Formats: sequence, C-alpha cells, structure tokens
Amino acid sequence: MISEKVRTLLPRFREYIRERVIPLESRFLNANFAEVAAELDALRREVKSLKLWAPHLPETLDGLGLSLAEFAHVSEELGRTPIGHYVFNCQAPDAGNMELLLAHGSEEQKRLFLAPLASGAIRSCFSMTEPDSAGSNPLSLKTQAVREGDSYVIDGRKWFTSGADGASFAIVMAVTNPDDPRPHRRASQIIVPTESPGFVPIRKISVMGQCGAGYASHSEVEYRACRVPITNRIGEEGSGFALAQERLGPGRIHHAMRWIGICERSFDLMCRRAVSRELSPGSRLSMQPVVQEWVAESRAEIDAARLMVLAAAEKLDAHGGRGAREEISTIKFFVANVMSRVVDRAIQVHGALGLTDDTPLAYWYSHERAARIYDGPDEVHKAVVARAIFKQYEQPVR
Amino acid sequence: MISEKVRTLLPRFREYIRERVIPLESRFLNANFAEVAAELDALRREVKSLKLWAPHLPETLDGLGLSLAEFAHVSEELGRTPIGHYVFNCQAPDAGNMELLLAHGSEEQKRLFLAPLASGAIRSCFSMTEPDSAGSNPLSLKTQAVREGDSYVIDGRKWFTSGADGASFAIVMAVTNPDDPRPHRRASQIIVPTESPGFVPIRKISVMGQCGAGYASHSEVEYRACRVPITNRIGEEGSGFALAQERLGPGRIHHAMRWIGICERSFDLMCRRAVSRELSPGSRLSMQPVVQEWVAESRAEIDAARLMVLAAAEKLDAHGGRGAREEISTIKFFVANVMSRVVDRAIQVHGALGLTDDTPLAYWYSHERAARIYDGPDEVHKAVVARAIFKQYEQPVR
Amino acid sequence: MISEKVRTLLPRFREYIRERVIPLESRFLNANFAEVAAELDALRREVKSLKLWAPHLPETLDGLGLSLAEFAHVSEELGRTPIGHYVFNCQAPDAGNMELLLAHGSEEQKRLFLAPLASGAIRSCFSMTEPDSAGSNPLSLKTQAVREGDSYVIDGRKWFTSGADGASFAIVMAVTNPDDPRPHRRASQIIVPTESPGFVPIRKISVMGQCGAGYASHSEVEYRACRVPITNRIGEEGSGFALAQERLGPGRIHHAMRWIGICERSFDLMCRRAVSRELSPGSRLSMQPVVQEWVAESRAEIDAARLMVLAAAEKLDAHGGRGAREEISTIKFFVANVMSRVVDRAIQVHGALGLTDDTPLAYWYSHERAARIYDGPDEVHKAVVARAIFKQYEQPVR
Amino acid sequence: MISEKVRTLLPRFREYIRERVIPLESRFLNANFAEVAAELDALRREVKSLKLWAPHLPETLDGLGLSLAEFAHVSEELGRTPIGHYVFNCQAPDAGNMELLLAHGSEEQKRLFLAPLASGAIRSCFSMTEPDSAGSNPLSLKTQAVREGDSYVIDGRKWFTSGADGASFAIVMAVTNPDDPRPHRRASQIIVPTESPGFVPIRKISVMGQCGAGYASHSEVEYRACRVPITNRIGEEGSGFALAQERLGPGRIHHAMRWIGICERSFDLMCRRAVSRELSPGSRLSMQPVVQEWVAESRAEIDAARLMVLAAAEKLDAHGGRGAREEISTIKFFVANVMSRVVDRAIQVHGALGLTDDTPLAYWYSHERAARIYDGPDEVHKAVVARAIFKQYEQPVR
Repeated sequence: MISEKVRTLLPRFREYIRERVIPLESRFLNANFAEVAAELDALRREVKSLKLWAPHLPETLDGLGLSLAEFAHVSEELGRTPIGHYVFNCQAPDAGNMELLLAHGSEEQKRLFLAPLASGAIRSCFSMTEPDSAGSNPLSLKTQAVREGDSYVIDGRKWFTSGADGASFAIVMAVTNPDDPRPHRRASQIIVPTESPGFVPIRKISVMGQCGAGYASHSEVEYRACRVPITNRIGEEGSGFALAQERLGPGRIHHAMRWIGICERSFDLMCRRAVSRELSPGSRLSMQPVVQEWVAESRAEIDAARLMVLAAAEKLDAHGGRGAREEISTIKFFVANVMSRVVDRAIQVHGALGLTDDTPLAYWYSHERAARIYDGPDEVHKAVVARAIFKQYEQPVR
Repeated sequence: MISEKVRTLLPRFREYIRERVIPLESRFLNANFAEVAAELDALRREVKSLKLWAPHLPETLDGLGLSLAEFAHVSEELGRTPIGHYVFNCQAPDAGNMELLLAHGSEEQKRLFLAPLASGAIRSCFSMTEPDSAGSNPLSLKTQAVREGDSYVIDGRKWFTSGADGASFAIVMAVTNPDDPRPHRRASQIIVPTESPGFVPIRKISVMGQCGAGYASHSEVEYRACRVPITNRIGEEGSGFALAQERLGPGRIHHAMRWIGICERSFDLMCRRAVSRELSPGSRLSMQPVVQEWVAESRAEIDAARLMVLAAAEKLDAHGGRGAREEISTIKFFVANVMSRVVDRAIQVHGALGLTDDTPLAYWYSHERAARIYDGPDEVHKAVVARAIFKQYEQPVR
Repeated sequence: MISEKVRTLLPRFREYIRERVIPLESRFLNANFAEVAAELDALRREVKSLKLWAPHLPETLDGLGLSLAEFAHVSEELGRTPIGHYVFNCQAPDAGNMELLLAHGSEEQKRLFLAPLASGAIRSCFSMTEPDSAGSNPLSLKTQAVREGDSYVIDGRKWFTSGADGASFAIVMAVTNPDDPRPHRRASQIIVPTESPGFVPIRKISVMGQCGAGYASHSEVEYRACRVPITNRIGEEGSGFALAQERLGPGRIHHAMRWIGICERSFDLMCRRAVSRELSPGSRLSMQPVVQEWVAESRAEIDAARLMVLAAAEKLDAHGGRGAREEISTIKFFVANVMSRVVDRAIQVHGALGLTDDTPLAYWYSHERAARIYDGPDEVHKAVVARAIFKQYEQPVR
Repeated sequence: MISEKVRTLLPRFREYIRERVIPLESRFLNANFAEVAAELDALRREVKSLKLWAPHLPETLDGLGLSLAEFAHVSEELGRTPIGHYVFNCQAPDAGNMELLLAHGSEEQKRLFLAPLASGAIRSCFSMTEPDSAGSNPLSLKTQAVREGDSYVIDGRKWFTSGADGASFAIVMAVTNPDDPRPHRRASQIIVPTESPGFVPIRKISVMGQCGAGYASHSEVEYRACRVPITNRIGEEGSGFALAQERLGPGRIHHAMRWIGICERSFDLMCRRAVSRELSPGSRLSMQPVVQEWVAESRAEIDAARLMVLAAAEKLDAHGGRGAREEISTIKFFVANVMSRVVDRAIQVHGALGLTDDTPLAYWYSHERAARIYDGPDEVHKAVVARAIFKQYEQPVR
C-alpha cells in the first residue's frame, strides 16, 4: 500500500530525524524554541540541500509533491520528535496556510506570502479561535472586518493564535457579511501582516506552565482598527468557513500521523526502558506482566490507529473532504485517545524519569493533552459521526 | 482489497442470512438448538443447492475454495446471527476439524471422517481441555493413549468438549509419548468415534444458565479404556501440539471475523433502537449525546478491529502461522474486547429489552464472554505479544 | 458504626447462609427455582424458628425491626448467594410490597395481603413497566384503571412483572386520573389478586437464555377488563408515582447492599481460585501481577462502595428519601458498576470454569447485568445527580 | 465524625484560602514560586497571628495539635490551591521532616533544626531517591555514609530532592551499615546542612517543562565527601528504612487529602464552567448529558475517595502504621486515580482554557501526574494489597 516513492524516502527521513534532529531535542525540551532556533534553521538549510524539504508541497514550490496518503507516512516519521515537522517546513499552522494559499490564493498572495513561506524565509499564524465563544458555533464569531474603501478594518480579539510570536503574517477569520442569512457565509479569511498597525499581541498565553517562544508558543492577539487591503482576502467574500472546513481534512491527517509518530517514539522509549531497568538483579521491568499488558495493548492500539488514518487518507485523496467527513472525525478522537494512553503508559514505565524533561514524554503528556480539544473536542466529533450514521437509519423510515 | 470473487458472493450471503436464517433465530434463542435443528438442516440443503456451501473448503469437497482472507469477509456476514455458520457448515469446531483432516488426514481418514463432515452428514467435536489443568501448559495434559497392539487405549477426562452431543466422532488430544524429553512432542491427536465403548459423556455442562443441546452445547466426557485403531491417529505420533498450534491461526481469523459480524449486527440493532425509541414526544434516544458517544466509539472500534483482522489474515495467507503469530495473538484480545464493549453498549441502549431473548444481544453478552477466555485468555496473548516485542529490543544489546 | 444489635446478628446470618443456603445454590443454578422451591421453603420455616425471619419488618409482624442502615449490613450477608434473600423473606419485590402496605395499606389490605406476605404464606409481584414506553416518563404510562361503581376495571399490558409466576397478587400501576393537569398525579397503585378474571399471564420472558420459574422469573401480563374493588387501591387516588418514588430509596439500599454481598462472594471466589490454581508447579495465579491488580482494585472499589451505601442509608434514615435523593441515585450507578467489574474479573480468574454454573459467577454476570438498567439506567441517575449539583451553582447567579 | 474542634476551624481555613491565598495563585502558575515568595511569606506571618499555623504540629510548637484524622480535613481545604499548604507551613517534605524530628530527633536536633522549621524560619528537603535504582528495593541504595571519627563522610548522588533550592538542610538516606545481613537495617537518615562543603546541587531538574524555583522545584544533588557530625544522625544507626516507612503512613494521608482538595477545586471549576459556558443562546454546557456524566461520576468518585481516606486516617490514629498498611496502600492508588480522572474531565469541560495557566487545572494535570509514581507506583501498592489479602487465604490451607 506504500508507494515506491515513499518506500525509498522513508528511511532517509527516519535516519535524518534520528541522527540530526533528535540530538537537539533535549535543549528544546529543557529550555524552549528560542534556544535552538538558530540550529534548527541550519538543519532546515541542510534538509533543502538533501531534497527532503516540504514533503507536502508540489515540486514547483521545491516540495516533494507527495499525495496526502504518501505524506501521511512521512508525517509519522517527523512526529517522532516535537521539532521534526519544523525542520522540514511542514509544521502547523504553516503547512495548512501553505495549502490554503496554494489552492485559493491570488497570484499576488502567492508571490507575497506563499513563496517566502514555502521557502522557509518566514513563518505565519492562523487567527481563528476567540476567547469567549464556542469554536464549533459560527454564530459566535465576534471579530469583524468592515470595508472602508479598498481596505478591511478589522476589530476583535483572538485567542490561541499559535506561533504568532515571530510570524510575518496572520490569516484572520473575521465576519465580513454579518447580514447574510446563512450563518456559514458570514465570514472571510484575510491575510494580516503582523507589522500592520493595529495588530497587537497581548500576551503569550502560558500553557501547561510554559509561555514558550516563537513557533512553539500561543498568543492572544487583539485587532484594533487594523487596516489591510481588500486584496488580502483569500477567496470569495463569505467563504471563510468553507475554507476552514476544507483545511480541516488534510490537517487532521497531518496531525493524526504526527500523533502516530509520537506513539511510536513513546512505545520505543517504553520498550527500551522496560528491557533495561532492573528491579533487582536478574529481574527487569519487561518481565512484569503488567508492563507486558501495556506494551501489548499499546502495540495493538497503535497499529489499529495507523490503519484507520491511512484508510481515511486514501479516502480523502479519492473522494475529497466531504466524502471522508466521518472518517476524518473518527480518526480525530480515536487516535488522540490512543496517543493519550500510550504516552501515559510510557511515563508510568519510566517512573520519575518520565516526569522530567530528560525524555520528550512529559512534553507530549502535557502539550498534546490539547489533541482531545483543538479542532473540536472529542465530544463534538463523536456527535458528528453518530448523527451521520443515524441519518442512514432514519431515511429508510420515510 | 476484496477479491472480485468475494465481492460478488458477499451480497448473496448477506441476503440469505437476512431472509432465511435470521427468521429462525428467535426460536433458537428462546428454546435451544434442538428446537430448530430440523429447520436448520433444511436450510443447509438449500444452501448447498445455491452453491454457497462450505466457503472455507476447496472445490473438490464442494466448497467455495476461498483463501483465508476471502473467507474472513464471509465469516463476518455469517456471524451476524448465532446460527449463521452452522447453516453453511463452517461452524467451530467442525470447520477446524475439516481443515485439520484436509491437511494431515490419511486417505482413509478423509474418506471415513472428512467426507461426511464436509457434506454435512455428520458433526464432530474437539476434545482437548481438561478440568484441572491450565490449557496453556502442555505438561499438564493428563489424558493418556497407550498403545496395545494395533490400538490406542485412551484414559482421561475432558472438559468443554463443545458439540459432543450428537457428534459422530471426537478428535482427542492425548499423551502418547510421555517420555519424550520435549514436552511439546508428547501428545497426539486421535479420532475417536463417539459410539466407541469407553467414550462416556458425563454431562452437558451448564454454561451461563443453559445446558444447550446438539451443536450448541459443551460436554464433559470421560474416556474409559476407550480403544481405537492406531490408524485413527492424525499425522505423526507426538505431533499433537504442533497440529493444535497450526489450527489456531486460521481458527482465530474465523472467530475474530465472526465477532466482527456480532459487532456489526449489535451495532445495527443499537442504531435501530436509538432512532426509534422515543423518550418523550419528539425526543428520541438517538439525540442523546451519551448514546451518540457509544455509537461513534463503537463505529471506530469495529472499523479498527476489522482492519486489524484483515491485515492479519493477509499476513497469514502470505507467511503462514509462524510469520503472523503476533498479529494472531493481537487480534484475539483486541477484537474480543471490542465485541465485549459493543454488545454491552447495545444492551444498554435497549434497556430491559436488551436483557431478554427477544434480540440476540443477551445470548452474545453471556455466551461470548467466553471469547476473552478460550484459546488462551487475553492475559496470555498479551504476554506473547509483549515478549516477542521485547526480544527485538534485547537482541541488539548483545 | 454498626449497632450492637446487628453486630450480634451478623455472624448468625453469615453462618446460616454458608451452612444451610449455599449448599442448595448449585441446584438452583443448574436447574431453576422450581427445582429447589420445596427445600427453600423448609429453610424458611427453620429461619423463622431461629428468629431470623424478615429482618426488614417490625417485630409486630414477626420481623427483626431493623433500621434501614442496620438491615443494610444484613442484606450484604444474604446477597452472597442468589437465593439468600428469599430464604429470609426479604426478596424483591415482596420486601418493597411489604414496606408499601405497611406504610400505606388500609387495615383490610394489611390483613388480607400484608399478613400472609409477611408470614411467607404467599408471594406477590409488582406490575409497573410497560413494553413500549420509557419507564422514566410518567406520561407514557398506558395501563388504565377506570372506575365502574365500586370497582376499577383495568386494561393494559405490563412487562417485566418479576415473580408473577406463582404470586397471589400483583400491585399494578395504572392511570386513574388521566385528566389531572399534573402528570405525576395521574396514576394509582392497585392490588390485583392473580386469580382475578382478566389477569392474563402472556409468557415468562426469556431473559439471558432462561425463562426461569416462580420467584426467579419475569412475566409479561395483560390486564383485560380486569375488575377489582376500589378498596384495593393503596393510598389516595393519584398517589401512584409518589408511592413508587418513596419505595425507590429503601429499595436501592436493599439492592446496593445485596450487590455488595455479590461483590464480596465473587471476591472470595476469585481469591480462593487465585491461591489454589497452579499454572505450573510452584507457580500459582495469585503470583501474577495482573491478578494482583484485579484483587487490589476490587478490594478498593468494594470498600468504597460499601462506605457510600452505608452513608446513604444513614442519611435516608435521618432525612427521608427526599433528603438523600442524590446519594440514592449515586449509589445506584456507582455500586452497579463496581459489581459489574468485580464479577467480570472473578470470571476471568476462573477461566472456563467461570463461564459454567459450577459457581454463581455466570448467574450474576448474566442476570445482574440488569443492575445498570432497572429502576432507571445509569445514564438517568447520572443526569439526576448532575442537575441537582448544577442547580446549586445556578442559584447564586441570580 | 468530624470533631467539634475541626468543625469550627474548617470554615476559617476555607475562607482564608479563598480570600487570601487563591488571589496569589495566578502569579504562581504563570511565573513560579520565586515570583510570589515574598507575598506568601507575608501570608505566613498573617496565618500565625490568626492562630491557624502548622495545624499538624503540637501546641508546644505553636501548632494546632490536630490528630491525623482531624488534620486530614484541614489538608483538603489547603489542597484547593497549589500554594495552600506552604502558607500554613505544612507542605511536603517539611511537614514530614517535622514529624520525623519531633518523634525521633535528639534534643539538639530539635533545637537546631525542628524549631526553625516549625516556626517557618527555614525550609528543608528530603534526599532519598537515586537516579539509577528502583526506589522500592533497599538493596539498590548506593549513597554511603562512612564514619570517620565523630563524622559521617557522605558520598552519593540523589535525584528528585524536592525543595532543595533554598533549603537550609537535607535529610539524607545513606548506607551506614553495608555489612548488616538484614538489607532493611543498612541505612540511616542523616541531617546535612546545605551549606556543608560537599553538598553540591547539580541542577534543578526540569519537570513537565519547568525547572521551578524554591519550594516548588526538584533538585539533583551530589554528596561529595560531605562531612557532618555523627550527632546529625536521626535515631539509631540502621534505622533509616524503618523511619522512612513510618513517615509514609501519615504522609499518604496528607497527600491523599490534599488530592481530595485538588479534586474538589477542579470539580468546582468544572461546574462553574459548565453552567456559565454557552454553546449557543440558551444552550449551556451543563445541559450536555456527557458533561452531566462527568460531573456525576466525579461527585461519586470524590465522595468515595474521601470516605476511604478518612477511614484509613482513623485506623492509622487507632492502630498505627502497621495496622493500617493495606488501607494506606489502597488510598495511594485509589485517590491518585480519582484525581487524575477528575482533573482530566475538568480540563475537557474548559476546552482550550483548561490547557492554559489561567486556571490551576493545567498545573495539576502536569505536576500531579507524579501522584501515580512517587512513594511507590500504583502497581507496587496494588501488589502489596493483593499479597496481604492472599496471605489470609493461604494460611487456612496449612
């Protein structure tokens, strides 16, 4: 099921991650992104020279031109360290922003924003979530972009704008057509350079005890009469939610395979620890049936999760986001929960060491708790899946 | 991934199960196997005439000649009702006995025992488990078969000899070479016609409140100086455990896909109930988020389970039982637990109705509790998987 | 916290259960109630002579006059076998019917119905649940009792009328005041002798593969123009739901402590099996850390469950059903789930033996699955508890 | 069950925590301990003047003289914020060190070390865990204290010496009698002033992304020929493990009740969020049955956990640590897991907000993950409980 192209590429990614990226991991974990930013940038240049850059982008943008199902396998390899995707320039939210601009950006937008993003010259952010409203409800969006001449004037407050620190532009979701009777047609996505007057970073939100820095941070941002040209709007006016929806399908495949990478690395760490840790002379953790249960269950769950994601990716490649909506929602909650259990077990096997930043487990335990929340909490996705199933049962009744 | 052959066959099985078999189900559930035996036999004749008989057997035995991976899909369809496999003559333990005789039986054994079994003229049973010993330990096997001239004289007590009631012969596991230094080479499998003197049924064991009857029963059997010709031994002397091991791989695929069939039918019942049950005017169970959670989680788990089993079946077809040992152990505990959860949720959605025998849910809830126990409890299979994994970690160390 | 009175009584109950009742258990499990009815009746006479009869009834009715919290401890002891409560004449639904008649019956009702019930001369049943309506919604009650002169004429269909087989009378919930604007004031509870014309047993419902018999069975009953004197109504007209509600509090304490008894016996069987079952010479199940986990978790959960029930019983004794409503709902789902887990683990430790009726585990596994459903499914009780809690949070807002 | 004394005190603690301590919490969470140290010290002085200081200490040391069961209730109140215990000078490990010195310290030790600790003038730490050895095995202790004249010369490396940053002394576990045939009699506990030459802090270990500071930090410490007077040994030579064991009982009550406090605050935050968060106009999170499930289950589990801890505390007060060993092990794993689930649910109800340090949930989620590990992982405690139970079953066999 793996294409020949990917079969050749995978060992190269795997080796690069192991030999070049993971050695930097400890400093990222014990300090923050700023500490290793320069060295990561050196790796990025190296990766380009190795022709492994931007696997998700077409070759015209110096990417590898992989299909979503092909990229899925790569994403798993990169996910084995928290800094993997960044080195290959396919980190969220930049990867999603690139895909969006590629599909819907104007020529000017591609030249001004996509090109430098694809080359790694700049970073970007995505400014959608608002502090006091449920993300799942489009009616609750409060940020407004009002037309004044050739400009939009944007006012509002955004929360969890990940990576805003150091980004060159944000893509902002704002209400442009408040009077449209169709709630899902009221908003647009607009590019806002972060140097624009009125783009006001309020704070880096402290998350799980860390403010983070640069790419690995989450900002609260206020838009205060922030003026940008109308040509910065992506796609038609009112298409904001449709574009956001379109982004979610591939985004979840990216994330889910990254999570599988986290699972595999955690599994690997758990096994290494189990076979090496002596409880007493001759007795190792790996001989404990409880540890054996965790390992066997983790193996089964990770394998099942990967099969699910790959099946969803193939369906998405074949039928597009609408055709794979249920699968996309399903892998969201299914894989996030598998990851949560695998990381938790790996920590327990490590004992106190698992709590420290001497391994990436604590980072994933704390920061990937978000996986069950962002892009819609588990509960929302389960309701989506169930309602779609019930619809099939209700129709024959008529 | 489904072969064209199976793609054409599946709807025929599905329809036959729905139209002809399920209508008999209620009487089986509310009475027992004896109550519907005659009608099931009529269906068996019909199935033969429709050329759907014995999908797991080669065409030379009037079967469909399906590969294991192909049969897996069929087994799911038949598993949607507790009496499905019997109607198509691929029920346990007969299907396993047929596979065993086909691969290792002498010509005479094939003529005397396999032919009538394949044609459905007789039933058989498998007599391995003993009351006071752990099945997972070959050293604990107590039944002995002692050579006397051209005969084996068998003495011992067997427990959970499923389907012995009404069977024409048993395949008995007995120690023939007690002095072999290799514990796994001490036993042989021997065919014992149930009319042999010394084949003494002690009782039908009451399981989950039911003694059952015929195919759907479990007997305790004593072998008292039970004499059979040496030519009744299957394969070489001392090959008993090897043959039992060989049987397990395909057997678990059969079972696991039957379990998926149980899951799908339970899921179907759960959804039908949810959309039809009113809590108050206009408010149906399907609108309850808790029920939606159960449905979404069940859908995800069943899909994951099926992908796991099909991957294991393909590996088994390609590499044989040894090459797929871990996968075979993994699906054993993984699918059994998915089934357990899905059936439990389906009962909860049905309320008191789910406890009655007006649906097959109660039957599966009680009688498929065995799935986490027979052929080795979950805990044993988890240990097998974990140890195989740890071995990979331990080797490089040296 | 245990009264002196109960402290003295408990060992007597415990010993009687162990020495006289459990020896009959196997025949009950392998056959049914009818098989052991005569012997159980002999035990009932013996229990009377020992002055242990009817611990929940006042001394004026030859009971022991225990408070609810005192009876709770006794109920645990009796719960150690499925036939324990019957022997002491405090089985459901008779115990609840006795409490109801004691509190709200007329003098005539007490003489005609309570007295023989209390003495054990007759049995009774409770006819409330209907096949096609959600029990939690009073508006869905369809059985009607229409006044004609001095009689009620009852029409309707009742489901899960437990113990109707062989009972002398039923207490029937029927709509008497369909036009009352308060839905909870529309029904009454009416005594219907089972010999009344129009009391039509339809079938003993097959539950988990068994129709059962006598006390241990569940009937579907039709009321066809069934006429009884108006004096058979218990309490005021329209008080049916209030009386049902009143019954639930003590009923759940009875059940919950019976469940604790089931837990303790299952725990005991699990431990005995673990220490006695050899996996190989010198290696016993009890040395397996997975089994140790099950035992430790079960011990913790059972202890926690008992503390919760006793606290609820004390609150109920002190403040009545209204004051302890949340606690009553909480123990319903909490203890039922503890029991479900403990019995499941005990079966797994027993292996195939746990599936047979050689122990009571299979009976509890299958028949006590009902615990998460009857008297309101878990989900309803959780909603009750949560809404009561949220109310406290909502009030201060105003 | 609550003494009159505590009944009067509790509202004072509760109010003080709410009015004076919680207002500082946000700065602790968003920065670290150093940020709020001065203000916390001001509160400590205030608390002393209010006569609420050191509730666990006898009145002779200006404490409140509460029994363990009484202090348990107070500990719950203080546990509602991560900085609660510190303000009242009963934080770990100082509280344990005080109890140890009080029971086993010499007069000189009490004067030099206990007195300033009790008055809050200094802090201390406990230096036991070592990096490469399983804490549960006394044979693996590597740090040695060798007698030279009137001194011990200590060499070794200690890990997770919590609160070493800024502490005035450490209590160090070291092997003093390596040749004692009884492994549990080989070590002693020795007081080491942190200003001693040879007391070398290596690093503050980064835990869950944070190095922390002062009281809220964990240090790796090396002892390099670190010389202290022999009079610094606590108790007899070789009594180290016995003293450590003695400390564990009360310590787990302290921790477990602190965890209950964490549960209650998390529960409170969850409920407040649920009733205030609108999904759409008129529809709040609290109306979602899934949220109702979480709230009801949390309520049940917290209540059960508290009953378990109070019962264990009473047993410990009455029978000492040996008599309550099983209960102490049981509450360790039972309450830690309840806390883990409650905090996790509270985060899920908060959505992205739950991941930020705008509430204490993220702090508890990440830093209290340790609860299932320190003082022995869950698995060890479960084995302890199970083995004690099995012993009761094995004895009658003889």
